[in-house]
Amino acid sequence: MQIEFLGTGNAGGVPLFGCGCPACARATDRPQYRRGPASVLVTAGERRILIDAGLPDLKYRLAHEPVDQILLTHYHIDHVQGLFAVRWGTGRRFGVIGPEDPSGCDDLFDHPGILDFSTKARAFEPFVLGDVEITPLPLQHSRPTLGYHLRHHGRTLAYLTDTSGLPSATSEWLGRQATHLLVVDCSYAPGEELPRHHNDLPLALQIVEEVAASRCLLTHLGHRLDSWLLEHADLLPPTVGAAYDALTLDV
Amino acid sequence: MQIEFLGTGNAGGVPLFGCGCPACARATDRPQYRRGPASVLVTAGERRILIDAGLPDLKYRLAHEPVDQILLTHYHIDHVQGLFAVRWGTGRRFGVIGPEDPSGCDDLFDHPGILDFSTKARAFEPFVLGDVEITPLPLQHSRPTLGYHLRHHGRTLAYLTDTSGLPSATSEWLGRQATHLLVVDCSYAPGEELPRHHNDLPLALQIVEEVAASRCLLTHLGHRLDSWLLEHADLLPPTVGAAYDALTLDV
Repeated sequence: MQIEFLGTGNAGGVPLFGCGCPACARATDRPQYRRGPASVLVTAGERRILIDAGLPDLKYRLAHEPVDQILLTHYHIDHVQGLFAVRWGTGRRFGVIGPEDPSGCDDLFDHPGILDFSTKARAFEPFVLGDVEITPLPLQHSRPTLGYHLRHHGRTLAYLTDTSGLPSATSEWLGRQATHLLVVDCSYAPGEELPRHHNDLPLALQIVEEVAASRCLLTHLGHRLDSWLLEHADLLPPTVGAAYDALTLDV
Repeated sequence: MQIEFLGTGNAGGVPLFGCGCPACARATDRPQYRRGPASVLVTAGERRILIDAGLPDLKYRLAHEPVDQILLTHYHIDHVQGLFAVRWGTGRRFGVIGPEDPSGCDDLFDHPGILDFSTKARAFEPFVLGDVEITPLPLQHSRPTLGYHLRHHGRTLAYLTDTSGLPSATSEWLGRQATHLLVVDCSYAPGEELPRHHNDLPLALQIVEEVAASRCLLTHLGHRLDSWLLEHADLLPPTVGAAYDALTLDV
């Protein structure tokens, strides 16, 4: 499998509007340090799977780089906003699989256009796209949210955002797997604020221990964590790094 | 006053995702023909007023080109989506004046961040920003929607989208004004479909007659109208043209 990080930022992104902190100043000066809404494109054989759809310019991206399937972790706007323009499109339909969440986002379910939301992902009920087996995993967030564990030809990837810690059932399920790459919500710097709906670094590192993946990448970073990493990146464990927008790697 | 069209497209925009019609093909090949979500920036003396906030990259635009005030015509997502990232910003607050519409868009009112939605625009009740007098005008759309009539040093501009025809009170009010520039919703080509919530060209031209402005520009164009104009632009009356993204003119 190959994973490409289309975005690695939280809802405010980096740079945060109006902010002059070191990470925001760097991202303002050098666009390669920007963090857009968290989203990845997974390529597994012939199959291209988009996880989350918050890219503001998703319409243009999909026109050049088609995907076969869209998976949604949840219906917060920074994870779905790119769908609003896509839905009015023509020529094909998109299957969008996400958690059961009747309110969705704004009027997306009332006016789905070319998007088909009829298939819901259910916790721990694996499904198959091509030769990729996907298991939805419940996360702990402010609305129904699922992580996804993808298996392709024996290689495995867990994408776990947005979450604050893990439900014990998810933690136990992951503890029984060999996971090659873990991608995990890490929105806040250590001590930044009481984590409620997202991990701070200590909580993310606890998940890193629980999952015991070969390699771990932090995503959904906020600007304060990004600034903290400018000083303290060496404090991360050796298997852990911060993802960045456009990072592409083989799993 | 100066007006800059930041976007002149309908919700699907031009190119429409997946479409190969002449207008969409042209906009795909040549980005200057793209139409993003309808929005304008009005500069009047020192005062910069953004009308509608649907630009997907609004966060970046506002960082380079600050505005003093945001006016919203209504709370459909293609008119407000740029606010979702801006709201989490820091360093200043933005006044956002729009119609009374308790549901707003998704969770914008629940989590306004740096946006202040407390001032509501009321039909035919003028208010003043700097030395610009602004009169909200009721439109006919699928949710509460206001157009705005701006007067600055004797020059006047009416921005009327989204709408299907005009309520008689709005039409009569405008009939009593001298309007130098009319910007009006024209989403559909003639005969394209029964207009419900937007003007087609005949309905837009009826408004053009009612307002009798010195100059009229069509906005909120859909791809079919854009294709139609490729063949028939000469059928527009001499005072009427189609706006395009980045068009800037003095009023």
